[in-house]
Amino acid sequence: MLKRSSVAYFRIVILGSGNVATQLGLALRQNGLHITQVYSRNRRHASALASLLKASPVTALGKIEKNADLYILAVKDDAIPVLAKKLKLKDRLLIHTSGSVGMEVLKPASTTTGVIYPLQTLSKDRKINWRKVPLCLESNTKSGKTLLEKIAGRVSEDIVWLNTEERRLVHLSAVFACNFTNHMYVIAENLLKKKKFPFRLLHPLVLETALKATEIGPLPAQTGPAARSDDKTMKKHLKMLTTDKNYRAIYSNLSKSIKRK
Amino acid sequence: MLKRSSVAYFRIVILGSGNVATQLGLALRQNGLHITQVYSRNRRHASALASLLKASPVTALGKIEKNADLYILAVKDDAIPVLAKKLKLKDRLLIHTSGSVGMEVLKPASTTTGVIYPLQTLSKDRKINWRKVPLCLESNTKSGKTLLEKIAGRVSEDIVWLNTEERRLVHLSAVFACNFTNHMYVIAENLLKKKKFPFRLLHPLVLETALKATEIGPLPAQTGPAARSDDKTMKKHLKMLTTDKNYRAIYSNLSKSIKRK
Repeated sequence: MLKRSSVAYFRIVILGSGNVATQLGLALRQNGLHITQVYSRNRRHASALASLLKASPVTALGKIEKNADLYILAVKDDAIPVLAKKLKLKDRLLIHTSGSVGMEVLKPASTTTGVIYPLQTLSKDRKINWRKVPLCLESNTKSGKTLLEKIAGRVSEDIVWLNTEERRLVHLSAVFACNFTNHMYVIAENLLKKKKFPFRLLHPLVLETALKATEIGPLPAQTGPAARSDDKTMKKHLKMLTTDKNYRAIYSNLSKSIKRK
Repeated sequence: MLKRSSVAYFRIVILGSGNVATQLGLALRQNGLHITQVYSRNRRHASALASLLKASPVTALGKIEKNADLYILAVKDDAIPVLAKKLKLKDRLLIHTSGSVGMEVLKPASTTTGVIYPLQTLSKDRKINWRKVPLCLESNTKSGKTLLEKIAGRVSEDIVWLNTEERRLVHLSAVFACNFTNHMYVIAENLLKKKKFPFRLLHPLVLETALKATEIGPLPAQTGPAARSDDKTMKKHLKMLTTDKNYRAIYSNLSKSIKRK
């Protein structure tokens, strides 16, 4: 691999224009790194993100430069192996950003592969504090590891080396801690709507529940009817959910799971 | 009812010594209100909280003063009607602090009854910002309403008047937003333990998930394999949970519920 003296001179190509491509691209740029190209099949998407990152938009794979130091494949899980089969990057470092896709799917494109999986929920237009985001790294070569550590270290203080199997477990745990948690908020909001109460009513509770779990740990933080085996209240709640079969089943299953402790 | 000129001269009796009794008692005292007695059958509990609140401990119901302005029944749901049947308070304001118990169970004890239900998760030794906690109030008389509003207004900026039925709905929504959410954290922690990863890894994700839902609303904040109908990843996850039948069922049910949107 061609060696450049400082990461500030590195050339980085981003493939993709979604939430991760946008937020990771911005984080790299804000930390003094240089994005040269943004690839997306969709011209509008490529241009929008490229302009945000002061990079050149590219809509054809053939137009992607050959001599970049890092290629970031920040596309949907299914598209990762598809694109990897079309790229010819020799020994250039190619990474993806997925929690659940193995590193090995990148093999057809390069001999140096890796992963940066940011353990955070990302949206295009929502700023987050990247310094605190655990970046889960993996690479198949020593040079890849050195390079990834340098670049990731510019963005976050929290670097974690995980192999594919470990990363998949972390990703699965994140589905519970983030996606399913958010679904609990959605259900709560829908229940409040029955009396036209705003979700705002639950804001202090939602924030304190999260903060408490991070400060004292989730197990000692567990409260509620199921935790204290208050069968009378649980029965009342199930009765209130008679017409919401889906929510009723969720209430019943989760209460049982809590009581199991 | 005897009228005192300012809430600062009010005499307040707290019955109970648990999480709500402790935290609400502290909040009242820190806002210049005067707790005269703390009742608990357990002498050690009564003394501990009474000393914290500069009040007198009482372990016999007969020793409770007759002329207080407010009696707060902050005991377990099941104990509320039991104690209400033993108290004789004439027209003194008697309230409980439960989300799911009706106000009417207080009738045997007094003609003036009410509720202060703090919409927050409380632990004995965890400080919270009471100014932002929605206090759900109810009372059966005008004088009770005036008094409750004055006292609650000292503690929080967010006063909400709810009848028993409305309060029960809010309480049910809180079980999802707090208790079930916390159980998601517990499951995530247990999954991480398989590889000896600490829950700390998920702290930024847990906090951002909560913050994001309060800022953009839970529905637009929903991400993850189920939200994008990524069946391949969901299948992988279910396979990883083969030996955790309980978690597998929860994963499957919640994913289906998210996809239903």
